[in-house]
Amino acid sequence: MDPTQRLTDYVISSRAQDLPDDVIHEAKRSFLNWLGVAIGACQHPTVKIALEVVDEVGGSEQATVLGHRKKTDILHAAFINGTSSHVFDFDDTHLQTIIHPSGPVAPALLALAERQILSGESFLHAFTLGIEVECRIGNAVYPSHYDVGWHITATTGVFGAAAAAAKVLQLDNERTLWALGIAATQSSGLREMFGTMCKAFHVGRAAQNGLFAALLASRGFTSSTQSIEAPRGFANVLASERNYHKITDNLGGSYEVLKNTYKPFACGIVIHPTIDGCIQLRNKHGLKPEEIRSIDLRVHPLVLELTGKTEPKRGLEGKFSVYHSAAVAITDGAAAESQYSDERVLDPQVVELRRKVTTTAEAGIDEAEAHIRITMTDGTVHEIHIEKAVGSLEKPLSDADLENKFRELVSPILPSPTKVDELIRLCWELDKLEDASAIAKAAVPA
Amino acid sequence: MDPTQRLTDYVISSRAQDLPDDVIHEAKRSFLNWLGVAIGACQHPTVKIALEVVDEVGGSEQATVLGHRKKTDILHAAFINGTSSHVFDFDDTHLQTIIHPSGPVAPALLALAERQILSGESFLHAFTLGIEVECRIGNAVYPSHYDVGWHITATTGVFGAAAAAAKVLQLDNERTLWALGIAATQSSGLREMFGTMCKAFHVGRAAQNGLFAALLASRGFTSSTQSIEAPRGFANVLASERNYHKITDNLGGSYEVLKNTYKPFACGIVIHPTIDGCIQLRNKHGLKPEEIRSIDLRVHPLVLELTGKTEPKRGLEGKFSVYHSAAVAITDGAAAESQYSDERVLDPQVVELRRKVTTTAEAGIDEAEAHIRITMTDGTVHEIHIEKAVGSLEKPLSDADLENKFRELVSPILPSPTKVDELIRLCWELDKLEDASAIAKAAVPA
Repeated sequence: MDPTQRLTDYVISSRAQDLPDDVIHEAKRSFLNWLGVAIGACQHPTVKIALEVVDEVGGSEQATVLGHRKKTDILHAAFINGTSSHVFDFDDTHLQTIIHPSGPVAPALLALAERQILSGESFLHAFTLGIEVECRIGNAVYPSHYDVGWHITATTGVFGAAAAAAKVLQLDNERTLWALGIAATQSSGLREMFGTMCKAFHVGRAAQNGLFAALLASRGFTSSTQSIEAPRGFANVLASERNYHKITDNLGGSYEVLKNTYKPFACGIVIHPTIDGCIQLRNKHGLKPEEIRSIDLRVHPLVLELTGKTEPKRGLEGKFSVYHSAAVAITDGAAAESQYSDERVLDPQVVELRRKVTTTAEAGIDEAEAHIRITMTDGTVHEIHIEKAVGSLEKPLSDADLENKFRELVSPILPSPTKVDELIRLCWELDKLEDASAIAKAAVPA
Repeated sequence: MDPTQRLTDYVISSRAQDLPDDVIHEAKRSFLNWLGVAIGACQHPTVKIALEVVDEVGGSEQATVLGHRKKTDILHAAFINGTSSHVFDFDDTHLQTIIHPSGPVAPALLALAERQILSGESFLHAFTLGIEVECRIGNAVYPSHYDVGWHITATTGVFGAAAAAAKVLQLDNERTLWALGIAATQSSGLREMFGTMCKAFHVGRAAQNGLFAALLASRGFTSSTQSIEAPRGFANVLASERNYHKITDNLGGSYEVLKNTYKPFACGIVIHPTIDGCIQLRNKHGLKPEEIRSIDLRVHPLVLELTGKTEPKRGLEGKFSVYHSAAVAITDGAAAESQYSDERVLDPQVVELRRKVTTTAEAGIDEAEAHIRITMTDGTVHEIHIEKAVGSLEKPLSDADLENKFRELVSPILPSPTKVDELIRLCWELDKLEDASAIAKAAVPA
């Protein structure tokens, strides 16, 4: 098996005009969702601190920092915009690997689009290829790679960013292989960092490192040509099991972007069934927190493994707490970014309610499921079983839902509704744009 | 066990005036050797290509690119100088882990010394701390971490660079922990890349990423505070076995830099016994390549695992060929950088001789040993058994040897002998310098 060579062949031979319409449309949905979360988080401390250091080293003004009236060099722009897009944990999700595919790929391309003329069609095509490469590599090593402790969005995302950039830079066979090699050897990001600023940092670095890999390779910087499958390559070193067929089978005949989903809630996907159920029960029965005696959740074990924080102390930690998420779902009927502020996590009413949440992990329950049982102080019991949450592949957000999510995220940063509508329009017309950098240029305050 | 906290305590509490004299002297020897190899390789294609990309993104002119009349931003200066220092595979070696300790630490500090006033004493102290941190982490995970395929100089070096930079930036407890955390989550570099430009790249990135970690942490960028020992932290994810006692025992009472060694030959340390023996036999018996029938080597299995390339095609690959190394040792009586040029690797006489080399791997032979048996066309047999090669801890290079090595490496770049002598003097007086940046400023052509 030679998956590195096969992916390279595919990246080089794929043509924009061959993309099916549904793939083009789903790629646009992914990009619109990505752009919204990236702009929306641009004032978050994670982004602002990172930007302070980037400002200190002061790269050339080459590419836009989304939501800011400033530019920096293309590598650091990819880093900042990639980081920003993952801060809210609100970006797109390839459910079978829990990869957030757009995060590492889109910012690398957006930076390149300001370096050279890049048509919207080429942009969208490279974006689709980047997603294909990272998700297929993810498919090949999931779940062993994730289980051992790797943040798979970053570790595979660096390949996606490199592949997309290699396509735009029109690298030949050897240099595309090298780009993937330089990406492979930078693959990093530990799950231990979840709940800290480093989680979003991983995604920004994957974008930056993948772009750097392609730029180096384009000038002849050598690397391994078998970086995925070599005995001491990516798959053997960073995963205990691997299946290269998942990289090579039907390459060009199927599209991973079609499996992409978009979150209605600003937290890890594994809590979504719980939140969906809690909001439904709240709305149906007009539940009031003070009348609740207990909230009993039965969920897949991964839910507690990833989001088992019982007493979060910061907003960011709230995203890793199914307890907090259930509490705000019932209190506020929502789990948007504002439900994961420091204030909300420390709010006495929310704290009181989250302490009434008990959880049971059952291996027989699917990750997409949740069983919720709420007992009121008067003894009344309300139950719901969520099989597939809103935002799942089976219950996807509509285009209009995505536009609403975009508006909610972007409006605080770009107060002009006209500007926000213009950005949405540019995303839907991405494949028709003569110059994809128009989007970056429109994504800053007046 | 809390090795991350213990290392942090040590970095914060350690004082320059507590360093023993022998530690100070060995740190200077390490730095002198490092500076020589870093300057010496500055015109190598690996460095020049990397510099082209760095120039394209154009950071502020903050720190010196060694051997070039140019500055770039501190992050990219650390990257380029770190990369340069490992290109020749001629840097210092901590034999028990095969870590090259100075590579990731020195360039991060050299960049910082041009960012803020840093006394030579503080520089040397932070340098020693960085080496201590990376080598102790290396001790804790070696050999399982290396065996699985990680380039240990890079994966632990990022911690060393971060710790050294954190000391210089005077970070408090929490921020030093975060710096180590941001370092941990960037830990990367695959052994698959050996023989390509990526090997040196790893070291440069470790320097850059460790420095970036400390700069981010200094401004409040959060990370794990248990990045080494957490269930999904560095040691559990990147190694199959670990011993935290090797991090914490006698911390402050012993110094890993005292175990540092310096190479007389410009290639991986595992070939040195072979080269030493071949040169000794050549000089003793006046061996001529055309009169040799066969060269039979008996070595530790790692020698063939790491340097078993029978037919190298590029100079860089020659460094991973015990066959080529034995051939040039006999032909030229040397294994300096010029023996590992593309020309030398393709030279017909060298190729002919290397094809006469046979190897036997024996687990009972120590890594430091080599048994060499040369049979002449007339049937004469010459044998030698090297127990410890020149450059080993037991047969270290003298200060004068190190100065000669420095002169040989640096003179082609800085043609003025006065300038070279001045640099050597600055290194020996490092702990007395009011401003350590004097060294960087003196390390460029007139």
